[in-house]
Amino acid sequence: MFNQLGVIGCGLMGGSFALALKRAGLVKRVIGYSKSPSTTEKARQLGVIDQSAESALLAVSGSDIVLIAVPVAATEATFKAIRHLVEPGVLFMDVGSTKRDVVDAARRVLKERVPSFVPAHPIAGKEVAGIAHADAALYSGRQVILTPLPQTSPELVQKATDCWAAIGAQVLRMTPENHDAAFAAVSHLPHLLAFAYFNSVAHQPAGRDFLSLAGPGFRDFTRIAASDPTVWRDILMSNREEILKQTLRFRHALDAMEHVMKSGNAEALEDLIRKASEARGGWHMGAGKTNR
Amino acid sequence: MFNQLGVIGCGLMGGSFALALKRAGLVKRVIGYSKSPSTTEKARQLGVIDQSAESALLAVSGSDIVLIAVPVAATEATFKAIRHLVEPGVLFMDVGSTKRDVVDAARRVLKERVPSFVPAHPIAGKEVAGIAHADAALYSGRQVILTPLPQTSPELVQKATDCWAAIGAQVLRMTPENHDAAFAAVSHLPHLLAFAYFNSVAHQPAGRDFLSLAGPGFRDFTRIAASDPTVWRDILMSNREEILKQTLRFRHALDAMEHVMKSGNAEALEDLIRKASEARGGWHMGAGKTNR
Repeated sequence: MFNQLGVIGCGLMGGSFALALKRAGLVKRVIGYSKSPSTTEKARQLGVIDQSAESALLAVSGSDIVLIAVPVAATEATFKAIRHLVEPGVLFMDVGSTKRDVVDAARRVLKERVPSFVPAHPIAGKEVAGIAHADAALYSGRQVILTPLPQTSPELVQKATDCWAAIGAQVLRMTPENHDAAFAAVSHLPHLLAFAYFNSVAHQPAGRDFLSLAGPGFRDFTRIAASDPTVWRDILMSNREEILKQTLRFRHALDAMEHVMKSGNAEALEDLIRKASEARGGWHMGAGKTNR
Repeated sequence: MFNQLGVIGCGLMGGSFALALKRAGLVKRVIGYSKSPSTTEKARQLGVIDQSAESALLAVSGSDIVLIAVPVAATEATFKAIRHLVEPGVLFMDVGSTKRDVVDAARRVLKERVPSFVPAHPIAGKEVAGIAHADAALYSGRQVILTPLPQTSPELVQKATDCWAAIGAQVLRMTPENHDAAFAAVSHLPHLLAFAYFNSVAHQPAGRDFLSLAGPGFRDFTRIAASDPTVWRDILMSNREEILKQTLRFRHALDAMEHVMKSGNAEALEDLIRKASEARGGWHMGAGKTNR
């Protein structure tokens, strides 16, 4: 049980965390800060936060749990704004989709205060952003990856684990490096492909007509192409090294399929499709028990 | 109102059409044929068809509407098997996802009987195949593209239009060439990319671990990768010319994104993402009024 949750960044992720903790009776009050005062005010009007803070530092003051839910590229500036109030025993977490950059920024800025920071990545989201879409159930049944540093306080890692578990999430631990390699493959690359695909279809002479004919397969395949541009700019930039490795693998797989199509080898094409189809047929979300 | 529907190929598409016509009271009886007798028998036991036919020709005999719902590559052989009973006034349709090859086969095999054939492509499906998944509502609210030839009977085109409309579909007409170009872009390419992507992720050293961490974005993006291998082998092979044109466009769009990532141009990357995100945000399924 916490006395006060400080939310820095009252968007979909931060707002949903506040609602989930309230619903689970895990927090007495929530104080929130957003860069835009109108967003903070909206969060208050919606009852997601109880009180508006005028700065990130004021959202930390008096809080025993703090969630930093800003775009990945703004994490370092946030650490700088709050570092004087990063104290032992207070649990600080982020929700960033990349972890090496966040951990590096935490080391650089927080220095001897870094043990209070437990890097977290909840694998949840919607293709719509903003506080208006905040949802107490967003993290329920989802996985949350913690990537603690060697010096991170074990007590705070445990508190973080208990807190996410109490709102229905399954908690895994990984190194930041393994995290970023894995999510380049299963999240960042699909987003990159969906953005590129949508642009390639939309920006051709008959693009508008083509799009009017698209069906449910297209709808699902491109859902993530509607994701937030600033959030994804930051993710693709910050994890580009791992993503470009995955792009190369993808290009090889695409080459292989194009090659058998061009050479008219229907049997080999069917084999490649069957491999994908059977593997996808046997895949189920959230089957992860990885602990690395 | 039809007296007898003959279904050649008692799978998801054929079975769903039979159920839809029955539910709408558009047909008195349904006779079905499948290459595998056990499939035909299962369709009969499930009440999707009323009677089993021992050959494609026998499914046509006595029918005033015939749906050919076999894999695209089997269409020509089916035309050959039934051509002696392709008579004026009887409505013959297919459900193939490609149309130039089907129309060419119809011209070659049916010759002077070709006016009875109305090429059709209902934009509906599931990633699961087979008669057990047949669903009377599969075509409801979906688009159906008809690609009649110059010599196709206008009366039968009208009958086909009325029939699909009566089971809740929106009917559009296009040339086979425009159809194949459009569906290469909005359906065939996404499938190709989803197959290639799934293979690239699954077949790397840490693939299994990576897959265990994938979330809802991955789930939707890869749903179509579970599609039927023989169906998609035929589609990708038969429309490969148009698909390879689209692959080239896609590669250019991917190149553009990788280029700005590599050069560290975050602003240009955000622009590309924003274009995709806004276009996808403004897209709605089934907004098509194309009539070409």
